[in-house]
Amino acid sequence: MTASGAGVSGEDSLIARYFRPLATDPGALDLTDDAAILKALGEDIVVTTDAIVEGVHFLPNDPPDTVAQKALRVNLSDLAAKGATPAGFVLTLALRMADEAWLTPFARGLEADAGLFGCPLLGGDTVSTPGPLMVSITAFGRVAPGKMVHRSGAKPGDRIVVTGTIGDAGLGLDILRGGRVAAALAGDAAAREMLVGRYRVPQPRSMLVEAVRDHAHAAMDVSDGLAGDLAKLCAASGVSAVIDAPSVPLSPAAAAALAAGAVGVETLVSGGDDYEILCAIPEARFEAFAQASAAAGVAVTSIGTVIAGASAPKFLDAQGREMRLSRLSYSHF
Amino acid sequence: MTASGAGVSGEDSLIARYFRPLATDPGALDLTDDAAILKALGEDIVVTTDAIVEGVHFLPNDPPDTVAQKALRVNLSDLAAKGATPAGFVLTLALRMADEAWLTPFARGLEADAGLFGCPLLGGDTVSTPGPLMVSITAFGRVAPGKMVHRSGAKPGDRIVVTGTIGDAGLGLDILRGGRVAAALAGDAAAREMLVGRYRVPQPRSMLVEAVRDHAHAAMDVSDGLAGDLAKLCAASGVSAVIDAPSVPLSPAAAAALAAGAVGVETLVSGGDDYEILCAIPEARFEAFAQASAAAGVAVTSIGTVIAGASAPKFLDAQGREMRLSRLSYSHF
Repeated sequence: MTASGAGVSGEDSLIARYFRPLATDPGALDLTDDAAILKALGEDIVVTTDAIVEGVHFLPNDPPDTVAQKALRVNLSDLAAKGATPAGFVLTLALRMADEAWLTPFARGLEADAGLFGCPLLGGDTVSTPGPLMVSITAFGRVAPGKMVHRSGAKPGDRIVVTGTIGDAGLGLDILRGGRVAAALAGDAAAREMLVGRYRVPQPRSMLVEAVRDHAHAAMDVSDGLAGDLAKLCAASGVSAVIDAPSVPLSPAAAAALAAGAVGVETLVSGGDDYEILCAIPEARFEAFAQASAAAGVAVTSIGTVIAGASAPKFLDAQGREMRLSRLSYSHF
Repeated sequence: MTASGAGVSGEDSLIARYFRPLATDPGALDLTDDAAILKALGEDIVVTTDAIVEGVHFLPNDPPDTVAQKALRVNLSDLAAKGATPAGFVLTLALRMADEAWLTPFARGLEADAGLFGCPLLGGDTVSTPGPLMVSITAFGRVAPGKMVHRSGAKPGDRIVVTGTIGDAGLGLDILRGGRVAAALAGDAAAREMLVGRYRVPQPRSMLVEAVRDHAHAAMDVSDGLAGDLAKLCAASGVSAVIDAPSVPLSPAAAAALAAGAVGVETLVSGGDDYEILCAIPEARFEAFAQASAAAGVAVTSIGTVIAGASAPKFLDAQGREMRLSRLSYSHF
């Protein structure tokens, strides 16, 4: 992603106009070079990359500022779960055309979040496509050497903890598609709006970076569904887990949709797009973790326990019976 | 990009099967985590990102291994021009479906180049798209702190130097589209094949990393056309340049197409996809640079001189007359 004075092509002037204001880091070189410089400052660089595609991860008529926010925030969510402090990002934008009415709010949304989360634009590439819009972001974070929090590391006896509430974003997507949740919450516009907002604009738990780094044995963000992502964390750690399904934290709106029979628990724990942190906290550290989370303004809930073994994690219902989950998570293929 | 044993989704098994063999760096964590770790080792990290889109940067029936090679090599070309030694890359792959017949050669091509250039896969994301295939790569290089070679820095009196030959890739694309070059070279299958190869599989000048770092005042890779990219380098450096057009190095095939009247010089110097290095070398360093380049096995040619001023670079013909270039480079918008 480059822009220059003389010899300005359409692509260059597009970049200068919309994206140079976001390139506040000196390493971005005002987007006038072929590459950016990321100073390591003696720390490890944590690298994550996530792309969102129109019609797959966002809807064609989603507001452009929310598309930008989602693209950046799904990456910030990964950094938070790894205990890494945001350092910057590069953007690849595939567009059908340079549409000012779309680019202006897109860039505004991206600029707002780059400022809010302290994660400046370092560079990127803008290409044309005859197909759907696609926004691909690679984000960088910093941790002290060797201190990234891994998926592996959970130990029997650890508490399984999640932040925030689970299942909201999947319900928001159902509402945008005019599904059963829309009907069940027909009388509650605020609830519908909250759920749609959870789908469009994730809330990365960046305030929890230090608490995760200080206390978690293992962590990941919940992007593809709690059940499936927990299975991945357990597999990476070589352990299993038992989850008390009624303990899984639900928003009042999700609880209402569940009570109305519009969705089952299975849908909530496999829905994806939550962007909450799932982590394994040793029992002796849980109190300190909970206090640090409260101080950071992030709700955390203990939903189960890590156990030894290689079997898939079990979800138990209110009667302690194992639930059968036919679907664990969203998969692209 | 993650893969795991239990709870394997289609996406996870796709990654494990095709891409884990490429993740040879310990920081890739075998693609089983949400992020990768890039050790800085006291150096600056140089970050570049370039995406290629089916139907825009490559053709739908291009061999999958060449698509993978092009996606990685266009990024390696940027690193080489910045004087940065490859350290690794992350991959975002947008696919219509998980097609084994395409993914197998794609992964094989990527693996071969990751090995050849010492640039291992660190992580990535695989998403589904209803549209064209897209391959987006963010690549990382290392340089000693403060030693990245910038676009800015060219000074009056510096020689303008390019590696290899200019214009071949644009002719290769013309041949694939059955254009005038195909007709002009109808009797020379080897020339046509060479030009098509230059379009499909760029040759990043990675062997020249040290020579560029040691001797160049400014450098960039030629991706959008020599004329336009030179204008960008001059603008970033606050200088102008005079180019002796007959000195621009052409392959025998390009020279034949030019002699046959199938293309003009303007097409060759604005064609794009060259992935050669364009740099400004101080006169006193040119001999050392040329020797280092010869030792690295890369041809370099002095094509002109940096001059003071803010006007666009001039291309002079064999009679010393200024050529009018109506088009400087390829632009997406």
